Amino acid sequence: MTYNVQIKVMPLKDLLDPQGKAVLGGLLNLGLKGVEEVRIGKHITLQIDADSEDAAKQVAEEASKKLLANPVMEFYEIEMIN
Amino acid sequence: MTYNVQIKVMPLKDLLDPQGKAVLGGLLNLGLKGVEEVRIGKHITLQIDADSEDAAKQVAEEASKKLLANPVMEFYEIEMIN
Repeated sequence: MTYNVQIKVMPLKDLLDPQGKAVLGGLLNLGLKGVEEVRIGKHITLQIDADSEDAAKQVAEEASKKLLANPVMEFYEIEMIN
Repeated sequence: MTYNVQIKVMPLKDLLDPQGKAVLGGLLNLGLKGVEEVRIGKHITLQIDADSEDAAKQVAEEASKKLLANPVMEFYEIEMIN
């Protein structure tokens, strides 16, 4: 069966996020009020063909560890959609 | 009050996603089996100070339209977290 998996990869909370800072500046320049912090990461969707939801989740976990997220700077969260 | 808002910005479904294609190739090279499609977008979290949840959502909507998403190539989804 085909499973849809979402992976969110975000910069670690303790680290500066220069891209987010730049976007925050842009939003304030555009006149948007109230925005206090912006953090930007990646949103990845995978379509995985696997025997079970658990197997699909394990593939997503391995993909995140091996390629998608850099644990020195980022954390990831996996969510099954269906 | 401070509201946390998540915005997911993804390439439109009808468009090619070269970054996703490259990552798919990388995953297959690493020996991961079963991955059929990869799409990559942005995941943005905003901290917004506003009077109500609706007001915060409206700021997020405006930010998405004016700066965060390019409607020619991307769609966005806003979700309140709390």
